[in-house]
Amino acid sequence: MAGSISRDELLRIDAWWRAANYLTVGQIYLQENPLLREPLQAEHIKPRLLGHWGTSPGLNLLYAHLNRIVRERDLDAICLAGPGHGGPAIVANVYLEGSYSEVYPRITRDVAGMRALFRQFSTPGGIPSHVGPQTPGSIHEGGELGYVLTHAFGAVFDNPGLVAVAVVGDGEAETGPLEGSWKGISFLNPVHDGAVLPVLHLNGYKIAGPTVLGRSSDEDIERLLTGHGYAPCFVEGSEPERVHRALAAALDRCFDTIEEIRRSARERGQATVRPRWPVLVLRTPKGWTGPKEVGGVPVEGTFRAHQVPLNAVRTNSEHRAMLERWMKSYRPEELFDAAGRLLPDVARLAPSGDRRMGKNPHTNGGLLAKPLELPDFKSYAIDVPRHGAEAHESTRRLGMMLRDIYRTNPKNFRLFCPDETNSNRLGAVFELEDRCLVERTIPADEHVSPSGRVMEVLSEHNCEGWLEGYVLTGRHGLFATYEAFALIVASMTTQHAKWLEASAELPWRASVPSLNLLLTSTCWRNDHNGFSHQGPGFMDTILSKKGTVARIYLPPDANCLLSIADRCLRSKNCVNLVIIDKQPQLQWLPMDEAREHCARGASVWNWASSDEGRTPDVVLACAGDIATLETLAAAWWLRKKAPELRVRVVNVVDLMSLASPSENEHGMTADRFESLFTADTDVVFAFHGYAGAVHQLLHGRPRPSRFHVRGYREEGSTTTPFDMVVLNETSRFHLVIEALRRSRRPCEHGELLADECRELLKKHSTYVREHFEDMPEIRSWRWGEP
Amino acid sequence: MAGSISRDELLRIDAWWRAANYLTVGQIYLQENPLLREPLQAEHIKPRLLGHWGTSPGLNLLYAHLNRIVRERDLDAICLAGPGHGGPAIVANVYLEGSYSEVYPRITRDVAGMRALFRQFSTPGGIPSHVGPQTPGSIHEGGELGYVLTHAFGAVFDNPGLVAVAVVGDGEAETGPLEGSWKGISFLNPVHDGAVLPVLHLNGYKIAGPTVLGRSSDEDIERLLTGHGYAPCFVEGSEPERVHRALAAALDRCFDTIEEIRRSARERGQATVRPRWPVLVLRTPKGWTGPKEVGGVPVEGTFRAHQVPLNAVRTNSEHRAMLERWMKSYRPEELFDAAGRLLPDVARLAPSGDRRMGKNPHTNGGLLAKPLELPDFKSYAIDVPRHGAEAHESTRRLGMMLRDIYRTNPKNFRLFCPDETNSNRLGAVFELEDRCLVERTIPADEHVSPSGRVMEVLSEHNCEGWLEGYVLTGRHGLFATYEAFALIVASMTTQHAKWLEASAELPWRASVPSLNLLLTSTCWRNDHNGFSHQGPGFMDTILSKKGTVARIYLPPDANCLLSIADRCLRSKNCVNLVIIDKQPQLQWLPMDEAREHCARGASVWNWASSDEGRTPDVVLACAGDIATLETLAAAWWLRKKAPELRVRVVNVVDLMSLASPSENEHGMTADRFESLFTADTDVVFAFHGYAGAVHQLLHGRPRPSRFHVRGYREEGSTTTPFDMVVLNETSRFHLVIEALRRSRRPCEHGELLADECRELLKKHSTYVREHFEDMPEIRSWRWGEP
Repeated sequence: MAGSISRDELLRIDAWWRAANYLTVGQIYLQENPLLREPLQAEHIKPRLLGHWGTSPGLNLLYAHLNRIVRERDLDAICLAGPGHGGPAIVANVYLEGSYSEVYPRITRDVAGMRALFRQFSTPGGIPSHVGPQTPGSIHEGGELGYVLTHAFGAVFDNPGLVAVAVVGDGEAETGPLEGSWKGISFLNPVHDGAVLPVLHLNGYKIAGPTVLGRSSDEDIERLLTGHGYAPCFVEGSEPERVHRALAAALDRCFDTIEEIRRSARERGQATVRPRWPVLVLRTPKGWTGPKEVGGVPVEGTFRAHQVPLNAVRTNSEHRAMLERWMKSYRPEELFDAAGRLLPDVARLAPSGDRRMGKNPHTNGGLLAKPLELPDFKSYAIDVPRHGAEAHESTRRLGMMLRDIYRTNPKNFRLFCPDETNSNRLGAVFELEDRCLVERTIPADEHVSPSGRVMEVLSEHNCEGWLEGYVLTGRHGLFATYEAFALIVASMTTQHAKWLEASAELPWRASVPSLNLLLTSTCWRNDHNGFSHQGPGFMDTILSKKGTVARIYLPPDANCLLSIADRCLRSKNCVNLVIIDKQPQLQWLPMDEAREHCARGASVWNWASSDEGRTPDVVLACAGDIATLETLAAAWWLRKKAPELRVRVVNVVDLMSLASPSENEHGMTADRFESLFTADTDVVFAFHGYAGAVHQLLHGRPRPSRFHVRGYREEGSTTTPFDMVVLNETSRFHLVIEALRRSRRPCEHGELLADECRELLKKHSTYVREHFEDMPEIRSWRWGEP
Repeated sequence: MAGSISRDELLRIDAWWRAANYLTVGQIYLQENPLLREPLQAEHIKPRLLGHWGTSPGLNLLYAHLNRIVRERDLDAICLAGPGHGGPAIVANVYLEGSYSEVYPRITRDVAGMRALFRQFSTPGGIPSHVGPQTPGSIHEGGELGYVLTHAFGAVFDNPGLVAVAVVGDGEAETGPLEGSWKGISFLNPVHDGAVLPVLHLNGYKIAGPTVLGRSSDEDIERLLTGHGYAPCFVEGSEPERVHRALAAALDRCFDTIEEIRRSARERGQATVRPRWPVLVLRTPKGWTGPKEVGGVPVEGTFRAHQVPLNAVRTNSEHRAMLERWMKSYRPEELFDAAGRLLPDVARLAPSGDRRMGKNPHTNGGLLAKPLELPDFKSYAIDVPRHGAEAHESTRRLGMMLRDIYRTNPKNFRLFCPDETNSNRLGAVFELEDRCLVERTIPADEHVSPSGRVMEVLSEHNCEGWLEGYVLTGRHGLFATYEAFALIVASMTTQHAKWLEASAELPWRASVPSLNLLLTSTCWRNDHNGFSHQGPGFMDTILSKKGTVARIYLPPDANCLLSIADRCLRSKNCVNLVIIDKQPQLQWLPMDEAREHCARGASVWNWASSDEGRTPDVVLACAGDIATLETLAAAWWLRKKAPELRVRVVNVVDLMSLASPSENEHGMTADRFESLFTADTDVVFAFHGYAGAVHQLLHGRPRPSRFHVRGYREEGSTTTPFDMVVLNETSRFHLVIEALRRSRRPCEHGELLADECRELLKKHSTYVREHFEDMPEIRSWRWGEP
């Protein structure tokens, strides 16, 4: 392992640190005179000062030291900056190492390039103030805090050679998702996974106040991290040379430990107990090396260093002089040559080529992504000789497909789920893969082992974050979860969609596999769990994302689900929501019909319609499995009882295709829309989610008020399946009454038939409260049976 | 303090435990024959077996022991069951103590009542399978896991006499929000707050697999909880008598410690260092006392005990016999008298009256709630002699009002915020109250002290959960947060709204103060933070909630904000979102106009309109501060350049009032709607959020396609304020172009004027990329100036 560090190398690290600090400050303040070769004037200062200094010197320090470690040990390493507001720091470092100019040739490694680097930061048409997709070497957006460790773990799963260094700021450390993500090591296998080195960087403050961990004693932090299963290593100080020496030694110890854990586990060939992975705790002052005081008030080491410590530099010459002294304290003349290029002796601190953390291909995962070896989804088809005659658990077929995907893709596919894989009927995967748990297992456990690759953790945040890290580094996966609790990660998924939206504008970012979410155990069939488990609102947060990066699929049965799953697993740069329940449900379409239906996104089900090519009197539309069931039952009822009515049945699988193309890139054409829904027939639309989702999608379509949408309306409890649709007024009988009311041609016995439906609803209410289950004729209903 | 426990008392506790276990199993299985006084027959069994056994015996054990502690020490205590699926357990206990029958007189304390108790559980028209508002003594919904500690801390803030026992299951302990909520003690002041006793109840498994903490060693758990700042106390076992003795002793130790912490802090009169509060770690088998094995497979102590351990009891007589043996193992004949009433010697274990945890008035907080002493909001008004002539930071005025609310309500109002109180311009509160931190403070800190009552923690989950606990126990508060990151708690807020929806159907639940959320630092003015901070999607998740429990307010200026804040702080049983930015913004309305405008929810701004009572050619509508600014600038531009055009300006503050009353109880009447928007004039609608929100609200209104909504469309970066509206095509110039295009009467020079706008947009683009700030004429624009 590494010996003690030479004085030369320490000086080189310090020089790099100074250079990075210099470039950080320059980005925040300067629009001209980047190397301060002229006296600093007001017009050299940007008119709006935007950026965050406080966390930057710590990030710069760490990056400088990591350069040495990576180079000396020839590591495959990436760095995730949790304090995303350290944007200028990470940009400074990838510029110094040369990665930046390779990605953005306009930003050259000379004075002109440095000027451009400074000018683009936090300015219109330039780059954002935080780390994001624009930053080479990044797979982690700064901004919403809490996810840096989960992204890091996701990145190293199945990447045995990789080390992800993940910096946790003490603000981020205060969030719930971060605190919950320390558990990642209980799911990290030292044989077939890489390593995460968390760096808890405590500088004491968040924006304005102290942090809990910033004020905790070293003893409590040691206990906390040891309790989380780690071996902590502390570095603390404000005197550069001492901190350099301590940090270099600490990093050597951490990487020695990582190497030893890997070596011994790999020699044994299997993980037995959870290793005590290292974690580095780094305490340095906020805004270290910046102004100590401004206007008599302490700044360095306090919350006042968080953003721009000197904010009047354009108008106040004293502030300007302080800025000049501050920047010159880094001695730029010792760092950059006359042309403005980093001196070779400093530059050689960094590794070269793809070992540079800003160029590591894992951080542009699309470069490494291989398409999945997908089995033929048709081979899992349910045989459907007659439409809607038999009930099966649709997700069980998907489970079989996932099992075989694990088989053919043993190293780049994983399923993530909060402990519901079996409950969600995806348990076939356990024929091939265990649940992962790198902890003690006992005989009562089923399908649990340290080498398992089915990721079950009761944390939607970890599931989502691990999958995000996994796909951003070019692998494939699926996150299956209870529909209602998907909303727990609405914010994370939104941020991922935003990452994809921003990445789409960067030609150098290769497409990454899509983020696939299966929402099952849906609102309509949480009749056993009750009201708190009934919430289809997650899709509402996805609807607002650009049509280029988001899809919502509502397959009505198993064969459609298989077809949609195949499409999602082949797709790139998308957030795909697939929503279907796990309970036995009628199977509507043979595989060839399912495939064609899904390819179209929505189509008329002629076999269920009675319009026979003529203009229908009313359209019964549906999206979602239970909505489809009730719609088909309504159509069947009308066929028997009001045969003169021309009813068209339309099923929608691809929800966003309903949108007008002017509102959403993915919307179907006006002609297609009209071919399904006609130009002016009334449509009774049974919908899986809240009606508002369909209402908003219909904006811009002809006469949207003819669409009468019935969906989940916050009614429900622990009850029976049919009672759920009754409570929400979306049952077959409600649909029939609405259809009779909306029919273009009045139905002869319409009012009588509606009364019959009302009677049936009353009968249901009485029956279900006496017998605690649905009426037999409801339970046994099949399409096409008398 | 308490001495050692007598054998009699131990036997009584054990009897209570057996009675609660008996009633738990009965609820899951039986519809008849509640006391098994006849041989168990198939028809006694419910047709659908729904419920969760696994966690219940542990909850029953704890409740039994807490009864003793509460009675002996005359404690004011409540119990929050994190494992919400222990619904039947908590119901069993509050039934045994008599609270249940007082709230639900139909469920009598005799055989008939027990039969009704069993029949109602998890059946249509009955009660849900988890703890919820229907459960007396509860302020915490089972279902979505992670929030039990944050609710408990919220409940005890400013309740110095209260102890909240919060049971954390080992499933819940795996979530991020729970792990982050241990930090509550760093914000808990032993002088003026109550105490939380967390009980980490580890039974090893979640639904199907082991848990991380369930497999951690006692040493690691001890370190973890000590690292979190607690003093852990362990009880472990599967032999009842031993566990009873150990638990009784452990609870005595925990409550002795709590009393000692309180006594010493209160004697000193102030908190200096954070006390080491006790935490109880209870390890007992999952499904303890249930079937040991079923069909040769172990059940007790494994994940198989999670739900219904014997699921074929109706059809399989062997299973039925096992159930009978199981239930009889609790010796019901020793617990209930002939009439089915709990024997007095067992019953006297429980405390009486309001000391019973199911009757503690804190859990029906509306009973204790006092209206806030609100200062006159008009006294904080900004003087607005001319509409739109001066810019001020609107939220700063709210900060002054909040400061005075702290003054007049020193014990039942708190502000919660992730460290952004100053940033959000609410800093006036610090003139009166400090930030709370019960940790070491240092001279560099500003307004930080252990006795502070402004709650800043960088955890939206804690802020939201603390406020939920605070209002559910009858106090008042406001959670202020960055708009984009409000989505982090979309799911929590949804669950709270669901709690309110369900509570509204329970006449015995008194109304509680509303949950008020201020979303500031909005998408339009996160031009300095960039794309990840730009997300108005939170309101989309609230839109789907019932109009009875949710409101979305978009005040356009300070005086409207004050009026709305006053309304929200007086309201009950609602989730109120208030959305307004913190940056300086033009002030439109003098206070009297603001008040009237807010009372109406939406109105025509005649002073800004040029239709002079005639039918307008086009309506310019707006909702949101920046949308209002751009709309007014567009109206002004049109007034100057196209004076012949009749333009009406409508401003909407109360977003949900747009909805059709048939879709939302809060929607305005058709007449009112028409009086604002006419029946058929085109409306150019500038909106704060995603256009889809308005599109869905317009469903059911006449000809909604005449509404041309422009809102945030996922465009933005670190740029200038005006560039944000340009990128999202919502700028004044975009609105003018749209208005000219949509005008009923064509405007004479319409095309020329539109071209002029396009030129100005080009000019802006060039200017902003050269100067890094908006054009002076944009920055200085005021209403009514040439």
